[in-house]
Amino acid sequence: MKLRLVLISFLSSLFAYQVFAQSSPAASAARAYRQAHEHEIIEEFVNLLSIPNVASDTPNIRRNAEAVSRMLERRGVKTRLLESAEAPPVVYGEINAPGAMRTLIFYAHYDGQPIEPAKWTGGDPFKPTLRSASLEAGGKDIPFPSRGQKFDPEWRLYARSTGDDKAPIIAICAALDAMREKGIAPASNIKFFFEGEEEAGSPHLEKIVEKYRDLLKADAWLICDGPVDQTRRPQIYFGARGVTGLEITVYGPRRELHSGHYGNWAPNPAMMLAKLLASMKDDDGRVLIKDYYDGVEALTETEKRAFAEAPDNDALLKRELGLGWSEGAGKKLIELINLPSLNIRGFLSSSVGATARNVVPSTATASIDIRLVKGLDHVKAVDRVIEHIRAQGYHVVETEPDEATRLKYPKIAKVIRQGGYNASKTSMDLPISRDIVAAVEIARGKVIRMPTLGGSVPLYIFTDNLKTPCIGIPIANHDNNQHSANENIRLQNLWDGIETMAALLTMK
Amino acid sequence: MKLRLVLISFLSSLFAYQVFAQSSPAASAARAYRQAHEHEIIEEFVNLLSIPNVASDTPNIRRNAEAVSRMLERRGVKTRLLESAEAPPVVYGEINAPGAMRTLIFYAHYDGQPIEPAKWTGGDPFKPTLRSASLEAGGKDIPFPSRGQKFDPEWRLYARSTGDDKAPIIAICAALDAMREKGIAPASNIKFFFEGEEEAGSPHLEKIVEKYRDLLKADAWLICDGPVDQTRRPQIYFGARGVTGLEITVYGPRRELHSGHYGNWAPNPAMMLAKLLASMKDDDGRVLIKDYYDGVEALTETEKRAFAEAPDNDALLKRELGLGWSEGAGKKLIELINLPSLNIRGFLSSSVGATARNVVPSTATASIDIRLVKGLDHVKAVDRVIEHIRAQGYHVVETEPDEATRLKYPKIAKVIRQGGYNASKTSMDLPISRDIVAAVEIARGKVIRMPTLGGSVPLYIFTDNLKTPCIGIPIANHDNNQHSANENIRLQNLWDGIETMAALLTMK
Repeated sequence: MKLRLVLISFLSSLFAYQVFAQSSPAASAARAYRQAHEHEIIEEFVNLLSIPNVASDTPNIRRNAEAVSRMLERRGVKTRLLESAEAPPVVYGEINAPGAMRTLIFYAHYDGQPIEPAKWTGGDPFKPTLRSASLEAGGKDIPFPSRGQKFDPEWRLYARSTGDDKAPIIAICAALDAMREKGIAPASNIKFFFEGEEEAGSPHLEKIVEKYRDLLKADAWLICDGPVDQTRRPQIYFGARGVTGLEITVYGPRRELHSGHYGNWAPNPAMMLAKLLASMKDDDGRVLIKDYYDGVEALTETEKRAFAEAPDNDALLKRELGLGWSEGAGKKLIELINLPSLNIRGFLSSSVGATARNVVPSTATASIDIRLVKGLDHVKAVDRVIEHIRAQGYHVVETEPDEATRLKYPKIAKVIRQGGYNASKTSMDLPISRDIVAAVEIARGKVIRMPTLGGSVPLYIFTDNLKTPCIGIPIANHDNNQHSANENIRLQNLWDGIETMAALLTMK
Repeated sequence: MKLRLVLISFLSSLFAYQVFAQSSPAASAARAYRQAHEHEIIEEFVNLLSIPNVASDTPNIRRNAEAVSRMLERRGVKTRLLESAEAPPVVYGEINAPGAMRTLIFYAHYDGQPIEPAKWTGGDPFKPTLRSASLEAGGKDIPFPSRGQKFDPEWRLYARSTGDDKAPIIAICAALDAMREKGIAPASNIKFFFEGEEEAGSPHLEKIVEKYRDLLKADAWLICDGPVDQTRRPQIYFGARGVTGLEITVYGPRRELHSGHYGNWAPNPAMMLAKLLASMKDDDGRVLIKDYYDGVEALTETEKRAFAEAPDNDALLKRELGLGWSEGAGKKLIELINLPSLNIRGFLSSSVGATARNVVPSTATASIDIRLVKGLDHVKAVDRVIEHIRAQGYHVVETEPDEATRLKYPKIAKVIRQGGYNASKTSMDLPISRDIVAAVEIARGKVIRMPTLGGSVPLYIFTDNLKTPCIGIPIANHDNNQHSANENIRLQNLWDGIETMAALLTMK
């Protein structure tokens, strides 16, 4: 009889987080508070989302920082803006917990990816819109419910940075409200570090962290960024891929030419670039650039185990994304993100569609991003791509080629290197790693442990520079269109996020 | 002594058209008239260029037709609009020459290529702007000179259709004015046929010509379209390449995906399309599509001779265009345009530059135009490309693929076929062909005879349907940026064009 109960309890811990949510007082408080205050939470979120937040938009970025500061201060958090020349300010905050044995620092970013309003349904990425479901699933615009009415947890809120990455900021604020209402104090000293240029590649982050090194001492950085698993189960990651990129422009005639009078004589830069890019990967998506995979570190046994335990979502994902195949010669997504990537994020030469003209284009440009794993260096990765371009017969330049250069070299590629950073990893076997997993599991049920996130956050600054473990706790739905038009958050993900944040703020 | 005079006269005929211009009374009259009336000619041109003329812009296209009609009527030409359902009207006109042995019909088009105002210096393709030289040569905006001042013949007038193809309409009008002033009548019955959808591929031209077959009886069509040789010497062509095209869209994930979380797993449509396009041509620009060159007719001996006599402008052109190489494995431009082409006129997938985002794009689209020579069929040419796409493993569809199709086929290409027409040629050895060359040479000096124009005009309608010889007499400068932003005409080309038109209108 007793054994049977234990078994039921064990199964519940695996599949029914509701049972366990009750056993985390802070998570329970968060749920009760949220159920009673959904309108206030969404209202505060809408206000924050309405402030445009592209990192290069300096006045608005500062408005965001000030708004986030005020939000923390209203919760009794001691805040300040960490400034560094030309960088968007970091919103820093502190809550001291007398007698606490640990210090946890929560990372998020309040800036968002660049926008193309014309691609957004409704046309304005900074006018939050509530929809009955995802647009892909036929979701329709719905008015914000009035005070007496409930929010359906499957509704989605659309705006830039709903998912990436203002949601965790709102979730933390709501969790703090819930804890205050119930008189629950944080169990660790808490610090907040919300940056404003993550989507621009965090060019100043390293300097800022170095400048405020003493202020930022902690036992772990908790990275509140990225999406949860495609099954919607909670997920924790212990590393992130590094990132870099480059933009390649190849040259045809100095001006666009009539394709009848000059077609098949004047070199076509779109064709040249197509050939150049085609030489970089095989049909399965494996990168053909010399030494591209050299140095990739092998996975540890624990990582392999976590990896094997993770659900296989590939078939589900392909259906959702309308894909009849995937790259990687049959390897699964969770395996493939442990390898470096080379991705064409954009390609442009002259025009297509209604504005296409019968011309030989003058230039063709491809923008490429590269994701890196442990053991690879971001500068060297771009070097290898450039070497490959040279090996295809190109003269590589860094600025627009002058007349003499154009006439001297048959094939010219202008390569603009982008900034970047290396991958990072924290051991899954550290006590803090295990404690964080346990805290989230008590609140939300079994989590999926990911050796690395496919996406990039500059965790090396914390793990390698500050020598501090760094663990990622995402809350956004995977289908949040982050980085694209029509970014959104599924409300249930936000609600769950509030409980997760409450559990972490109070973990022993 | 006499022999010496003949020799001098012969050399002059080759190199100094000024001497001979004096011996064509109409061309001389045209020059004198133009020198006295440059302001009026440019003013009328500016008025015509100010009317937007993209073929799909129905109200403005009609305004163009009416303006051109009025211009002809002011010169005593009996005009009417030839209408056909949904087609821009053709401006038709007639001048009867009592006792004339021949009827000549002058073709031009009053519509222009689609526009992208942002790419135009000054931003408005329909606001004619005078510049001191070509923009590429550092030309600056200059005000239109006041009545007392002269126009420098090296100045350029910028606007859509300055070169392609409103200039011949203005040149004909000025030539008629000049002839009237001097009491010179046309020596042939003259007809004018100015169409309004050439840049849209002349989809209704064949039907209109059929409908008005009797009205359009003539001994030759004179096609006043296209640019002169790069040396600026006058040029006459006896054929034109046919044209067709297609737009190819390949598919990645249904929505753009975060390139970190899905990069190297989700198929990248830009890479897929790059590989597909790269498979179509070798590094020298030769098309690798099966049977692509099958059926190309051999050149005649006369054509080969004309071809050998033509100047070799390749080195000059490469310098002008900033090209370190050309396609065709060393073959010259004048040779290569006697082969079919396959040209990528545009490629677009997501974004590059400041709006590039770290995504796996959802689609990639390439717009391709194909030029055809005698012996090839435009429908079959596209068939061959589609067969090639299939041979690369693609499932080819004509409309957006539905969900079942997306999941069933790993690689899907949507192919939108464009309309088109076949190439055309007229024998250089016909009496009318020789007479026209002679008439232009008397006015303007030795002409370059081209077996075919690289560009396309739907001459097959006249040569194949109406069984009428068809000869092209272009006047625009080769560097007129036709089909692109910053289209322009060099004033000397317009001045020369007036003399050429006067010579043709009065040829015996």
